[in-house]
Amino acid sequence: MLLRQLFDHESYTYTYLLADADTSEAVLIDPVDVHLEMYLRLLEELGCKLVAALDTHVHADHVTALGLLREATGCATMVGFEGEVDCASEGLADGKVIAVGAIEINTLFTPGHTDDSFCFVVKDGSQTYLFSGDTLFIRGTGRTDFQNGDPGTLYDSLHKKVLTLPDDTLVYPGHDYKGWTVSTIAEEKRANPRLEPATKEAFIELMNGLDLPDPKMMDVAVPANRSCGLKS
Amino acid sequence: MLLRQLFDHESYTYTYLLADADTSEAVLIDPVDVHLEMYLRLLEELGCKLVAALDTHVHADHVTALGLLREATGCATMVGFEGEVDCASEGLADGKVIAVGAIEINTLFTPGHTDDSFCFVVKDGSQTYLFSGDTLFIRGTGRTDFQNGDPGTLYDSLHKKVLTLPDDTLVYPGHDYKGWTVSTIAEEKRANPRLEPATKEAFIELMNGLDLPDPKMMDVAVPANRSCGLKS
Repeated sequence: MLLRQLFDHESYTYTYLLADADTSEAVLIDPVDVHLEMYLRLLEELGCKLVAALDTHVHADHVTALGLLREATGCATMVGFEGEVDCASEGLADGKVIAVGAIEINTLFTPGHTDDSFCFVVKDGSQTYLFSGDTLFIRGTGRTDFQNGDPGTLYDSLHKKVLTLPDDTLVYPGHDYKGWTVSTIAEEKRANPRLEPATKEAFIELMNGLDLPDPKMMDVAVPANRSCGLKS
Repeated sequence: MLLRQLFDHESYTYTYLLADADTSEAVLIDPVDVHLEMYLRLLEELGCKLVAALDTHVHADHVTALGLLREATGCATMVGFEGEVDCASEGLADGKVIAVGAIEINTLFTPGHTDDSFCFVVKDGSQTYLFSGDTLFIRGTGRTDFQNGDPGTLYDSLHKKVLTLPDDTLVYPGHDYKGWTVSTIAEEKRANPRLEPATKEAFIELMNGLDLPDPKMMDVAVPANRSCGLKS
């Protein structure tokens, strides 16, 4: 499996390119609209064909490239709930398996940051990879104070699903603001302050006390992403 | 082998932490002074002991953390030429092997970007890793117009040394300005415009025509790095 982690300096978003090295079929996770040309160039340079583009959730801090990628390549576009983003070609669902060549992308429904948040789990040989979107960050989690976010739901998604993955799972987050690129489940269990609260109630209190400003692109990004980033 | 790639948003520098997962001995490549506390925290969270800190060359765009790390941890500090950075505990040399637990870091002397530029090559199982400093970037190379840089010398370092590594070698550069994190030797051979010139003369002409502004921290960084980032 070929894996490329790409960083958007404006919104601190990580986009991931996964490709089957044998069939050259590829998928992009959480692509950002302004980097369309870069993605197309990278795909061409790697000799890859994009078969799908996935968003872990409807983002509030950047505009998705799903619509532009579909127009440019004809790829499938998948987001949480088809009903909310009717331009997407498919919805996601807990347990859904997305095949990209021999790569099987396993979908985990992990609401909490938003009500439409998903993670993707991929195994390559003995190594498990988690693409955790905004559900789990390196030493943090996504916030829970808009888009039907809910701290109790996030707590359950983390503790009942994400943290049950193998300890050596590589964690690739949807954002990082401090210059970190990757972690593991074991490392996050040990050192992530958002995983310290011993009870769901304590986690809810922590999250409800954060008092964060709105993301600066929220008013633009959320409506735009409901149409796959394409202007209506 | 544990590998962590860390990004400095100010100077677009990549720092690398390598550690032997069994002995927990670790090394940092190209650490940046302002992130000292982050490195120390990460080492502690991973349960690692820093045994060495290496600079690929005397940097002109950020101040090294070598001196601060030595003061904090007692680690060895290694830079190209001992004579130029007399606070370093050891110099580097072509073919030198630095042992960090079971990890063998092989030193390649690759002058051209500067006259003291080195790359580091590590094998882990069947995978080769190149930490290429400013000798080879993803789709680029370091510039050659200061600190005794020389385009003809860089051409030789690239074509006679770096590009002779296995095609599937993972290339981890010293900087990236576009949001890319990793590449391979095969990918760079195919798509790096700085590797397109068919002759050394054409490469020299290309590099001498770049007409780049000085790095903004150059006047501060170079003298500071000659004392390992410590104030005199």
